[in-house]
Amino acid sequence: MPVIRLDCTKCDRTFAPGAVLNLCTSCSAPLFARYDLERAAKTLRPEALATRERSMWRYHEVMPVEDPAQRLSLGEGYTPLLHAPRLSEWLGLKRVMVKDEGGNPTGSFKARGLSAAVSMAKVLGAKAVCLPSAGNAGSALAAYAARGGLEAHVFVPKDIASLFLMETRAYGAHVETVDGLITDAGRVCASLAREHGWYECATLKEPYRVEGKKTMGYELAEQLDWTLPDVILYPTGGGTGLIGMWKAFEEMETMGLIGSKRPRMVAVQAEGCAPIVKAHAEGQPDAPMWPGATTHAHGLRVPKALGDFLILRAVKASGGTAISVTEEEIVQGTKELAASEGLFAAPEGGACVAALRKLQSAGQVAPDESVVVFNTGTGFKYVENMTPLW
Amino acid sequence: MPVIRLDCTKCDRTFAPGAVLNLCTSCSAPLFARYDLERAAKTLRPEALATRERSMWRYHEVMPVEDPAQRLSLGEGYTPLLHAPRLSEWLGLKRVMVKDEGGNPTGSFKARGLSAAVSMAKVLGAKAVCLPSAGNAGSALAAYAARGGLEAHVFVPKDIASLFLMETRAYGAHVETVDGLITDAGRVCASLAREHGWYECATLKEPYRVEGKKTMGYELAEQLDWTLPDVILYPTGGGTGLIGMWKAFEEMETMGLIGSKRPRMVAVQAEGCAPIVKAHAEGQPDAPMWPGATTHAHGLRVPKALGDFLILRAVKASGGTAISVTEEEIVQGTKELAASEGLFAAPEGGACVAALRKLQSAGQVAPDESVVVFNTGTGFKYVENMTPLW
Ligand SMILES: Cc1ncc(COP(=O)(O)O)c(C=O)c1O
Ligand SMILES: Cc1ncc(COP(=O)(O)O)c(C=O)c1O
Ligand SMILES: [Zn+2]
Ligand SMILES: [Zn+2]
Repeated sequence: MPVIRLDCTKCDRTFAPGAVLNLCTSCSAPLFARYDLERAAKTLRPEALATRERSMWRYHEVMPVEDPAQRLSLGEGYTPLLHAPRLSEWLGLKRVMVKDEGGNPTGSFKARGLSAAVSMAKVLGAKAVCLPSAGNAGSALAAYAARGGLEAHVFVPKDIASLFLMETRAYGAHVETVDGLITDAGRVCASLAREHGWYECATLKEPYRVEGKKTMGYELAEQLDWTLPDVILYPTGGGTGLIGMWKAFEEMETMGLIGSKRPRMVAVQAEGCAPIVKAHAEGQPDAPMWPGATTHAHGLRVPKALGDFLILRAVKASGGTAISVTEEEIVQGTKELAASEGLFAAPEGGACVAALRKLQSAGQVAPDESVVVFNTGTGFKYVENMTPLW
Repeated sequence: MPVIRLDCTKCDRTFAPGAVLNLCTSCSAPLFARYDLERAAKTLRPEALATRERSMWRYHEVMPVEDPAQRLSLGEGYTPLLHAPRLSEWLGLKRVMVKDEGGNPTGSFKARGLSAAVSMAKVLGAKAVCLPSAGNAGSALAAYAARGGLEAHVFVPKDIASLFLMETRAYGAHVETVDGLITDAGRVCASLAREHGWYECATLKEPYRVEGKKTMGYELAEQLDWTLPDVILYPTGGGTGLIGMWKAFEEMETMGLIGSKRPRMVAVQAEGCAPIVKAHAEGQPDAPMWPGATTHAHGLRVPKALGDFLILRAVKASGGTAISVTEEEIVQGTKELAASEGLFAAPEGGACVAALRKLQSAGQVAPDESVVVFNTGTGFKYVENMTPLW
């Protein structure tokens, strides 16, 4: 197994890999997988990558599953990084790019995390997996569980779009709707997991989803010929993607693939649920529960993130920021992405376009800086959410 | 321009490329683009391909647009060819694979054809493009038109799922709903195109959509290490994909990339609209209009195809067949794909699984033959169609 150790992200405990593990048993913080990067650096070279498979598993030296036969894969990752000339012009910028995650299996970037996590769950002997979800993570868990022949249990807020229920159940998963938000669904999930011995795969509650998500960072570097953009806008709920990319940058620098320059990381949230924005503005190290969370970008409706301190740490260290946008701005951003570049994005992607417009107006992004906007999912899964607002 | 000539597919007329052209001006049959394959063969080599961009434009020697800057691309093509071990087992076969087109831009394989066609429309100086559509082609036309800054007009049956209207209009296209089927929409579209001077991009009515679609044939060969499967199941409406792949096989053989062995091509249709199945069974060279066409797999609801004779010719020459499935079988096939492999497919993809089950039962596919099933689109766009039947 390529993972040599699991490190706690808060205290100095370390754990041996090879067992089903969730949080640090001392301080309940998330665990990070560590690799022998010196060894990995020998083969993880730009020339070698050029001929590898077109999925996130191309970076296999720094991924948790060694044996290709044990990877549960549906072709996730290695998504297009699109130059967006018309959007750039509309925004008064010169080099806006869109990392379009909408073409992933199950229609969102959640496929990356769950491909890694469910593969590892199976490798480690789990028979059943579970998580709470705003929709996309649940359907991705269910799809990879189907692929691997595992049992899956998904807990979602009861106001979720009906499409997610149909999709997730089609994969054979058990789906339970819960009165409340994803945090409430998380409580129900955790207690049933304990009772039945299911492996909990909630965001950052096991160490491997973030390993899948970090591949977005590797891909950006590879697609930009081993440089990084000046600014990255990322729609932040639980924050795994942002945390994962930040981890990837560190690994790549250690392996000599990139230098020490980092993009300014911008955490984008909705005004109706902006705990990270508030904590960042106040200079807090972590973000308390946001009361009455609401937004039609359901992936952003995460009132309390387990990895809040890791998000805030990366944003601050990068010289970036955290910014919120209104529901109308999200709609506007989503429409702009469609009309300018032909991308029918999830509202989470629209939120990033809206945030970029604000940063540009405030002079926080210079016209010739290179900017990557994440569209984390397809709009097709959000038609029910968008219709009343469009 | 790589295209050296346009050949009529029915009579012996040929045309010079470089002008906006639709059908053969003598006999109204579709035109095929021809390349200097001897020259193309020099650089279109397996080793060279290994390092090229991950989109259908990787086969640029045999694609209509030479200059990368003139390609309107959203990352279409180079989709996963997934081994489907659990589905294989359920079907009593050993080597079923799924070519999963659902992750394409705009959620279907129509992106391939329209990326090529709209790029060429722009290169040739068109300002406005149009077509009739069951939904997916229209949204793809609109997306690439947005990307290229062209005007787009789309004509769809009025019982289309509302998602397609929202998506296509978001790209900025003009969408008109027509009372009737795609053939009726086609008549309205053609007459307005004549009136306003729009470039008509209906299936096979211009020569470049099929050039995009044929890349599915190139990809299959490349992904199978320059061999072809024994059997290909393709959901057939207008038939561009099947016709395109057949053209690709011929080109590849000429270039020495593959041998003369061909897969048995199976055209899959719905019982409610099976003109090709009927014509094939009767040994007819073309397929008359199917009266009262109906199926929830809207892409298969094509009562009369302009390229009927090309579909029938390829099916026959390949030793393949044409087969229809009921609405219940389509639903069943779609569900099987989800539950066995974690793929939430369009009903057109489900139809192919259902057809494969029938062929297997009838002993028309041997257990150890390699079989490729096409899932041509994501299920997310079909939830409205599927819900009443699931
Ligand atoms: C489309 C989409 N974007 C963004 C997010 C937030 O992702 P993260 O938890 O990595 O912050 C989600 C989570 O559900 C999502 O589904
Ligand atoms: C998902 C899907 N599959 C299959 C088809 C039929 O494709 P073709 O016209 O190439 O036969 C369509 C056409 O609309 C479609 O949208
Ligand atoms: Zn700890
Ligand atoms: Zn002719």
